[in-house]
Amino acid sequence: MTGQWIDNQKNLMLFSGRAHPELGEAVAKELGIELTPMTARDFANGEIFVRYEESVRGSDAFVLQAHPAPLNKWLVEQLIMIDALKRGSAKRITAILPFFPYARQDKKHRGREPISARLVADLLKTAGADRIVSVDLHTDQIQGFFDGPVDHMHAMPILADYIKENYSLDNLCVVSPDAGRVKVSEKWANTLGDAPMAFIHKTRSVDVANQVVANRVVGEVSGKTCLLIDDMIDTGGTIAGAVNVLRQAGATDVIIATTHGVFSDPARERLSKCGAREVITTDTLPQSTEGWDNLTVLPIAPLLAKTIHEIFENGSVTTLFEGQA
Amino acid sequence: MTGQWIDNQKNLMLFSGRAHPELGEAVAKELGIELTPMTARDFANGEIFVRYEESVRGSDAFVLQAHPAPLNKWLVEQLIMIDALKRGSAKRITAILPFFPYARQDKKHRGREPISARLVADLLKTAGADRIVSVDLHTDQIQGFFDGPVDHMHAMPILADYIKENYSLDNLCVVSPDAGRVKVSEKWANTLGDAPMAFIHKTRSVDVANQVVANRVVGEVSGKTCLLIDDMIDTGGTIAGAVNVLRQAGATDVIIATTHGVFSDPARERLSKCGAREVITTDTLPQSTEGWDNLTVLPIAPLLAKTIHEIFENGSVTTLFEGQA
Amino acid sequence: MTGQWIDNQKNLMLFSGRAHPELGEAVAKELGIELTPMTARDFANGEIFVRYEESVRGSDAFVLQAHPAPLNKWLVEQLIMIDALKRGSAKRITAILPFFPYARQDKKHRGREPISARLVADLLKTAGADRIVSVDLHTDQIQGFFDGPVDHMHAMPILADYIKENYSLDNLCVVSPDAGRVKVSEKWANTLGDAPMAFIHKTRSVDVANQVVANRVVGEVSGKTCLLIDDMIDTGGTIAGAVNVLRQAGATDVIIATTHGVFSDPARERLSKCGAREVITTDTLPQSTEGWDNLTVLPIAPLLAKTIHEIFENGSVTTLFEGQA
Amino acid sequence: MTGQWIDNQKNLMLFSGRAHPELGEAVAKELGIELTPMTARDFANGEIFVRYEESVRGSDAFVLQAHPAPLNKWLVEQLIMIDALKRGSAKRITAILPFFPYARQDKKHRGREPISARLVADLLKTAGADRIVSVDLHTDQIQGFFDGPVDHMHAMPILADYIKENYSLDNLCVVSPDAGRVKVSEKWANTLGDAPMAFIHKTRSVDVANQVVANRVVGEVSGKTCLLIDDMIDTGGTIAGAVNVLRQAGATDVIIATTHGVFSDPARERLSKCGAREVITTDTLPQSTEGWDNLTVLPIAPLLAKTIHEIFENGSVTTLFEGQA
Amino acid sequence: MTGQWIDNQKNLMLFSGRAHPELGEAVAKELGIELTPMTARDFANGEIFVRYEESVRGSDAFVLQAHPAPLNKWLVEQLIMIDALKRGSAKRITAILPFFPYARQDKKHRGREPISARLVADLLKTAGADRIVSVDLHTDQIQGFFDGPVDHMHAMPILADYIKENYSLDNLCVVSPDAGRVKVSEKWANTLGDAPMAFIHKTRSVDVANQVVANRVVGEVSGKTCLLIDDMIDTGGTIAGAVNVLRQAGATDVIIATTHGVFSDPARERLSKCGAREVITTDTLPQSTEGWDNLTVLPIAPLLAKTIHEIFENGSVTTLFEGQA
Amino acid sequence: MTGQWIDNQKNLMLFSGRAHPELGEAVAKELGIELTPMTARDFANGEIFVRYEESVRGSDAFVLQAHPAPLNKWLVEQLIMIDALKRGSAKRITAILPFFPYARQDKKHRGREPISARLVADLLKTAGADRIVSVDLHTDQIQGFFDGPVDHMHAMPILADYIKENYSLDNLCVVSPDAGRVKVSEKWANTLGDAPMAFIHKTRSVDVANQVVANRVVGEVSGKTCLLIDDMIDTGGTIAGAVNVLRQAGATDVIIATTHGVFSDPARERLSKCGAREVITTDTLPQSTEGWDNLTVLPIAPLLAKTIHEIFENGSVTTLFEGQA
Repeated sequence: MTGQWIDNQKNLMLFSGRAHPELGEAVAKELGIELTPMTARDFANGEIFVRYEESVRGSDAFVLQAHPAPLNKWLVEQLIMIDALKRGSAKRITAILPFFPYARQDKKHRGREPISARLVADLLKTAGADRIVSVDLHTDQIQGFFDGPVDHMHAMPILADYIKENYSLDNLCVVSPDAGRVKVSEKWANTLGDAPMAFIHKTRSVDVANQVVANRVVGEVSGKTCLLIDDMIDTGGTIAGAVNVLRQAGATDVIIATTHGVFSDPARERLSKCGAREVITTDTLPQSTEGWDNLTVLPIAPLLAKTIHEIFENGSVTTLFEGQA
Repeated sequence: MTGQWIDNQKNLMLFSGRAHPELGEAVAKELGIELTPMTARDFANGEIFVRYEESVRGSDAFVLQAHPAPLNKWLVEQLIMIDALKRGSAKRITAILPFFPYARQDKKHRGREPISARLVADLLKTAGADRIVSVDLHTDQIQGFFDGPVDHMHAMPILADYIKENYSLDNLCVVSPDAGRVKVSEKWANTLGDAPMAFIHKTRSVDVANQVVANRVVGEVSGKTCLLIDDMIDTGGTIAGAVNVLRQAGATDVIIATTHGVFSDPARERLSKCGAREVITTDTLPQSTEGWDNLTVLPIAPLLAKTIHEIFENGSVTTLFEGQA
Repeated sequence: MTGQWIDNQKNLMLFSGRAHPELGEAVAKELGIELTPMTARDFANGEIFVRYEESVRGSDAFVLQAHPAPLNKWLVEQLIMIDALKRGSAKRITAILPFFPYARQDKKHRGREPISARLVADLLKTAGADRIVSVDLHTDQIQGFFDGPVDHMHAMPILADYIKENYSLDNLCVVSPDAGRVKVSEKWANTLGDAPMAFIHKTRSVDVANQVVANRVVGEVSGKTCLLIDDMIDTGGTIAGAVNVLRQAGATDVIIATTHGVFSDPARERLSKCGAREVITTDTLPQSTEGWDNLTVLPIAPLLAKTIHEIFENGSVTTLFEGQA
Repeated sequence: MTGQWIDNQKNLMLFSGRAHPELGEAVAKELGIELTPMTARDFANGEIFVRYEESVRGSDAFVLQAHPAPLNKWLVEQLIMIDALKRGSAKRITAILPFFPYARQDKKHRGREPISARLVADLLKTAGADRIVSVDLHTDQIQGFFDGPVDHMHAMPILADYIKENYSLDNLCVVSPDAGRVKVSEKWANTLGDAPMAFIHKTRSVDVANQVVANRVVGEVSGKTCLLIDDMIDTGGTIAGAVNVLRQAGATDVIIATTHGVFSDPARERLSKCGAREVITTDTLPQSTEGWDNLTVLPIAPLLAKTIHEIFENGSVTTLFEGQA
Repeated sequence: MTGQWIDNQKNLMLFSGRAHPELGEAVAKELGIELTPMTARDFANGEIFVRYEESVRGSDAFVLQAHPAPLNKWLVEQLIMIDALKRGSAKRITAILPFFPYARQDKKHRGREPISARLVADLLKTAGADRIVSVDLHTDQIQGFFDGPVDHMHAMPILADYIKENYSLDNLCVVSPDAGRVKVSEKWANTLGDAPMAFIHKTRSVDVANQVVANRVVGEVSGKTCLLIDDMIDTGGTIAGAVNVLRQAGATDVIIATTHGVFSDPARERLSKCGAREVITTDTLPQSTEGWDNLTVLPIAPLLAKTIHEIFENGSVTTLFEGQA
Repeated sequence: MTGQWIDNQKNLMLFSGRAHPELGEAVAKELGIELTPMTARDFANGEIFVRYEESVRGSDAFVLQAHPAPLNKWLVEQLIMIDALKRGSAKRITAILPFFPYARQDKKHRGREPISARLVADLLKTAGADRIVSVDLHTDQIQGFFDGPVDHMHAMPILADYIKENYSLDNLCVVSPDAGRVKVSEKWANTLGDAPMAFIHKTRSVDVANQVVANRVVGEVSGKTCLLIDDMIDTGGTIAGAVNVLRQAGATDVIIATTHGVFSDPARERLSKCGAREVITTDTLPQSTEGWDNLTVLPIAPLLAKTIHEIFENGSVTTLFEGQA
């Protein structure tokens, strides 16, 4: 027989975009490795340049990028990083997007709209991503937008543990801020001792198209500690409104939990003044508690690191959540 | 200049699979055309053979197939019909699936599951479908599973018109049979004069995993006429249970409306005896009212025909629903 | 250098669809492994659900499915199993189809027909299959329908060995039941000591299109033991007719050998009464000898197991047949 | 409404490679158009350059290339012509390959071989061909190698008409030169008044692998006029040997008919001296009757022109053969 | 025959992104049509939303976007616009990028870099673009990065006409600012009466890697009017340096011409003070002459409009430049 | 856990086409392995057949082919070799093309031309190549034509070392034979002690389109030893003309260096008589110094072998050139 046989090894390498360097460092530290050094800079007209400082040939590459504003820039940077890995002969490329950009545009709400979340999945594939890791997709169906494995992680265990440790579950009611999140709320209710549920029902004006005229609470919240949950909070308008409605409906206290604290202006002001006792989130996006007393930020790096480890070692990601991956 | 110029024309051709021939005939009649004749038969071992009796070269082909049981057979037949059109030089192929098969498996509920709805979209693409028409997809995100145009039609106007004509809206409450359909219920509530809402909350046993122990009604239904809505009803267990819970919670009357009446055994028995006043559905799947007095079937053919006409003429499908395509 | 190096291993996992569980068990036993446990069930409307009970991440997955009636169901089940493996991060997926469905529709016999065998190959690719293993494809060209490696195994050695052990080759004549299988018969003739050959020539009516009016034997069969061979026998009409013609032409005895005993109704009755001394087949499809005395079933599992073993170990499949893969 | 509407027209343009310019001219003449002028030349190292002299934007382009030796050069030229059309914005590109190159390598005869015919189909697709037209593919299954429409034309009507006009059918026997072409011979037999059939059976040495030791005639040919048919004749060794065997078996006369007269050396010498009364072929490849008295060449251009016309006008190609496309 | 035939028409629709609205308006005006109205806005976290106000079904869609800073945002907006057209059933989608983003990263200058220009071409294809129009690509080879037609337009005729009208050619010398643009300079020299040429040669330090230590003029410039040309000017450092070197080498006067005036900071200051007599550019990117006396901006809209018109009417784009497309 | 775990190994196998067998042998020798034996032959009509004599299953396959005339034949042979590897289950396939065919057609010089270099890249991908290795591509951008890793090697270090050893650098001037190669010349100038530069400027007739009327030297060459460099020399006309012009401009001596010595007729005669002192090239193409005294051929095999070794071992190819891959 001709040819030359050698043992095959595999090499985990972790790459971090510039959007949220603390997260990259934290994940690397959890894994006990170093981030692979990379040159990344912007040209004067905004074009991004990246180059890896080490050979990436044959590596099992994990490309972590967070997606705060300016989100499009960070998305393109991640695509360029993936392209450089593909052309540099990485063996397998896993794109990690803790907060999946454009997840809200996961369908055509009306005609002649894009489905931008599918587009993002396709762009990642085109650039060269073999697989995706994300946390709490806006809808589970986004998994199906990617033609390959998607490891869909959940922050609920992290958030729920914090709540269990810091609040009594006896008088708790899980509230969805709108009709579309009731299913997710039910999972929370099951986790928190089969708590009762409620949701905010938006009614619309008969006269003016699409104008919301009133918010009704469906379900019983009077005298309860309400846990308002959502996958993401952007400007905080809906959530702050929900706190108000719950207060008016007799809720004793309101706590807010969300995986992705986008907190675009004027969210910080709105939420710190909305009357909620505490806002709990994770750092899938860069967070700062400066000047916002009742904001609690829980670290997502341990979850991401465990996921990377299981993928690299061909372990079971599913078991990280007892059946949720 | 060399070459030979002639005017370009286009030719609408409609093809119907064998799953629901009445629907094919009804759509053709609405369009004022004939179904293109086709030989279709099963070999002894179940293999399907199709052949078109006329040239399909250059046609704008619409391939209609319903998907009742045995659903996999009808899916494969549609794929084979599309392949024969592709190889027979049809210019454009639109697959019409009034009820999208495997729509419930639109995500991995737990690890190591398929996403069969995405798979179906990919199989259609592979066979040669350029575009898809469907009615009331289980979730809107399924639009994003197909890499091309999806015209997503809605039966709610048809069903809602019937309800407005036959029931008073004054005392109506729109009820979702589970937490996952509350968003759709809200659209119904808005359509039906901003009716109040409720939903059934399933609580689970602490001792046995995944065992539902009780169903609570969230929202106020006492003394009301409840309209239970769902996109599809299969064996009817959840819906019949919901009727029971609503009755116990004091509902005066219960009406059931669903686009897709799958009605697998024992749905006919369950639903005719469950205490609901009327079950309203469409014929996206073959229906029979024999021996089921309170079943009302509304025809879906006019909607499909209008959609085909707009697609062929490059009109606006969106306007059929004031912004829903 | 950053990164973390570990040894790379690979893991053979065998999955069996529900069409022919005995075959799956037999192959696993030959390999000395267990089938990976899987939940598989039908929803009431025929939709199939599958889920693996163990992590399949990184595995070298072999997905075995037989394709008896209802063939379309088993095909879709195999596609869904492959999709679940792809999304569950299997490293490589080999689809094993001992009997390749729709192999007879491997060309357009006339215009406006599908090429369903190519379609099946494309569907497997789309679902996620990297490679295919099959036995005695209806035509060798089907290998070229798949864009990837196809290991095309042959049952002739198994069947021929049985014949050599049980019959004298001295007076044997190899007969093809129609003009299209003469090439395959010649391989048999070469294997069986350069036996003489014959075939049945169908002549057609001048008056009625495509109507066969007579069958002539081309070649000398008088006083011989005829071995009728075919890759598959479905309803058995052609074969039973061939036995009759051979008898009339003076054949002393007729033996029938076929890889794929489809045996759709009324094959069992026809073939047990057609006057053939023995019908020899394999269990690429589920078989039963109950009430059919002269049916002999040879096991295909050893061949499949050896093939899987060579693929997994990167050995030579070609050597299994001295140059036939 | 914004936008600007104009009538849509389409433009047939015919392009001919340099392999067989007479055929291109003949087809253009039959269609009543001019070939689109093209610069084509070889660079000194063999690289081919092409450029069209007119705009091809929006055209329905037909790219005709024959494939005589040096076959690989003409194949690459056709690929380059298609690429230039794709990049020059042709609307639809149909590749016409009267003789499909590498058709004999349509399967792996043994392990570790290519399937070059599938490769050719894929190369055409990659270059930009939307559809293929070919004549008498070596096996019908090659249609399935292309992912798109293949119009598979047949020269048998042309050849058979000539034979009917020039020979008596009364004493005719259709003979296949080997076991693999018996199926095609049967079509001929049916066409020629249900003529009787025979074929040449090659037996192999027991001592030396793959060495043919004898050729037997299976079927009755004594006292008959034998029509030896094959899709292509290359060096003519098999055919000339068959003539000899038929003569020895008592055939009165032998006529040879083949669609593709490749006639590589020493075919001209072999066939002109082999004892056959006439060799009949078409000009799918360049032909010359100089110094070969009993060679008859029938023109293929009328068939190709009719096919192009039907494709352009969206007529039925199938009807050209009563069901063979 | 079944089916329904109607005449086929086609409809030009023009869409403009938000990066450079004046250019969109100018092109529409040249074409004598209106831009199709579109809703486009940014969500608080930077996600872009677009929706067309009219049906785009069946249209021949041209999607114009300029790419000034923030370039990544405008690129993603164009991708989303294309996705919405694809899903809204546009018939053909042409992406117009007057300045092709990331064109400078058209190769790996060193290992482990991306080829971002190829990535951009692939992203456009993935989103749904069938064809591309661009002006003065940084290198011609970028045409080959897109798998489809690229109409590559040239601004040289516009710029050269201006120069011929405003300057004497007698004493002109065409100068390339670096070794890589000499080929383009030669085209200019040929156009401007076979003017003499020169280029700036950068020499590097022996001690410090990649550090340029001196710029030499290769060619004779003393006493001449130098025309410095480049496809794009970003921060202006290289060009301003070249002016200086030319002055020192005895040039009488320096004029600068460039297609793409990126003019990132501090280009405005540098170039207005560098000693060049005039800087001539086009508005492929938004331009302002405020506070920059010697900047001349020539409109690119007529060229783009003519190109769109020829594409829509299937005319020849090549003739717009006598052989340059 | 079910399944069977074994260690994973990888196997380097080297395959050589028939275009330049000495190069294949030389590379194998450098690597210390044997070429995998292969049957390769031409059928009489030019069709190529290949078959590997050993199992290639699971191998890391490197397929080396040179591309002298008849270039199209060798290109197709390489494609067929790749197809056979893909279908024979090679794990990874690297195509090595020391001289990339059709590299000069890397753009549309005028409208309605192909981009043949992109076509070649796509054909390789379609056949099954995962990666490409080449030496001194005509333009660097060709790297971007392939959708995957391209290891672009450079012969300049080999050629430059020879020059440094054999010539004094003191009086050297690097000359580009035309405007398009000045950038490459600058790299040479930097490598050779920051030598001065010059180039030949072709001026064109005002009367006859595209006719070159004169060649001017831009830069100072009088009294210098001129090093004329080019990536490839085909018929040698441009280069021989450049030698003449340089001599007339006062150059003392001229040396020619080129990576790819295509040397089509009449290059050997032209270059041996053109007055250049020495012509230096490599054997990326087959070379012979017979009857050409001043031709020096440097071996390319060591560079290719080192590259293969680094790829197989996942080392850094970049380091082979201090940052050029």
